[in-house]
Amino acid sequence: MVNFFDKSKNLDQKKKIAELSVAIVEDGMTIGLGSGSTMAYFVEAIAKRMKNEKLTVRFVPASKFIEKKAIEYHLNMISIDEIEEIDIAFDGADWIIGKEILIKGGGGSLFREKKILLNAKNICILADQRKYIDSLSECIIPIEIIPFGYTKTLQSIEKIGGTCFIRKNKDEENFVTDNFNYILDTKFSGIYNWKAIHEELKSIQGVVDTGVFYGMEFNFIS
Amino acid sequence: MVNFFDKSKNLDQKKKIAELSVAIVEDGMTIGLGSGSTMAYFVEAIAKRMKNEKLTVRFVPASKFIEKKAIEYHLNMISIDEIEEIDIAFDGADWIIGKEILIKGGGGSLFREKKILLNAKNICILADQRKYIDSLSECIIPIEIIPFGYTKTLQSIEKIGGTCFIRKNKDEENFVTDNFNYILDTKFSGIYNWKAIHEELKSIQGVVDTGVFYGMEFNFIS
Repeated sequence: MVNFFDKSKNLDQKKKIAELSVAIVEDGMTIGLGSGSTMAYFVEAIAKRMKNEKLTVRFVPASKFIEKKAIEYHLNMISIDEIEEIDIAFDGADWIIGKEILIKGGGGSLFREKKILLNAKNICILADQRKYIDSLSECIIPIEIIPFGYTKTLQSIEKIGGTCFIRKNKDEENFVTDNFNYILDTKFSGIYNWKAIHEELKSIQGVVDTGVFYGMEFNFIS
Repeated sequence: MVNFFDKSKNLDQKKKIAELSVAIVEDGMTIGLGSGSTMAYFVEAIAKRMKNEKLTVRFVPASKFIEKKAIEYHLNMISIDEIEEIDIAFDGADWIIGKEILIKGGGGSLFREKKILLNAKNICILADQRKYIDSLSECIIPIEIIPFGYTKTLQSIEKIGGTCFIRKNKDEENFVTDNFNYILDTKFSGIYNWKAIHEELKSIQGVVDTGVFYGMEFNFIS
């Protein structure tokens, strides 16, 4: 198992960033809720603010993990398919390159997170300093793939230069996403054009989406 | 509901084509089994031949429907992820354009069928005469999409000129594929480049695959 997402680091900083971010929320908004450890802190912080200020806000959750957390804090939720648009989406990132590209998917929710960000009027990325990187030579791209024929999809990705590791859960079974798919953690050496690599991967039969996020206007809170 | 796949037509012709096709099978082969009504006849015919000639053949099924049929006839099956390659794949088609492009997915198994055909050394398409068309102005492309955010994916497809109908089952609920996804039956007017339209659709976030099959060497039995 590729273990490159250490969730236990910088918890204090994550909490502080989450607490700062909730100030942006306004009464009546529809909020996209990304996933991950920083977003779990965000849920706690926004719940506290809503209670204190009696705000009416609804949330579109990007994963079953964050949905469960939101239920715990009695947040009002709505499906992305029942709304026109999201006013502002908050999310974390695994890596940030030049403030224009995010690499996400360490938690396995890349597809739903991207769908939410693509349909949000404003995007706010909560990221501690260690997420900013210049070079991406060591970066791993999580890729969501359809389980049927996954060995063949993996071979197709290896043909274009990726080294793939199928993500496992703690029982060493293949990790399954909220969309019932698998994740390949894939390493490419010497990529300079992340848009091109995403497009090439996305065109492969069996690839649902990649963890490369671009073409959106990201605002950062660090 | 778009009802453009009338499965009840030409049953005698389908049966005849299926019976012809099984002669191609050789002892020891790994066979890809597409889906649909013609393939159901193929299963009956190959089971009969195997019994008569004591052939040892194994099958990779493309859908739960055809797998069930194969179990009924005691065929020996194996997963696509347990084998290196398929010797020959048999499948049907909804439309055939210029012998180079197939439009498939009327039965909802387009993803698995394409995965099997892409990994077969030889491809044999069983098609009665009414499947051959010249122009595709009235052709509907089935598109497999992820359920989460499907209304947004539909909007993205409509932006590039498609008119989408979400496929329903007999209870008028959204039809769910074997991969737990939805199908959009999508009409484009005036398409001349089917490869380009597939590529454009496949690049959209939420699109898993389309019913446009090309870039393979098809052999036809009609």
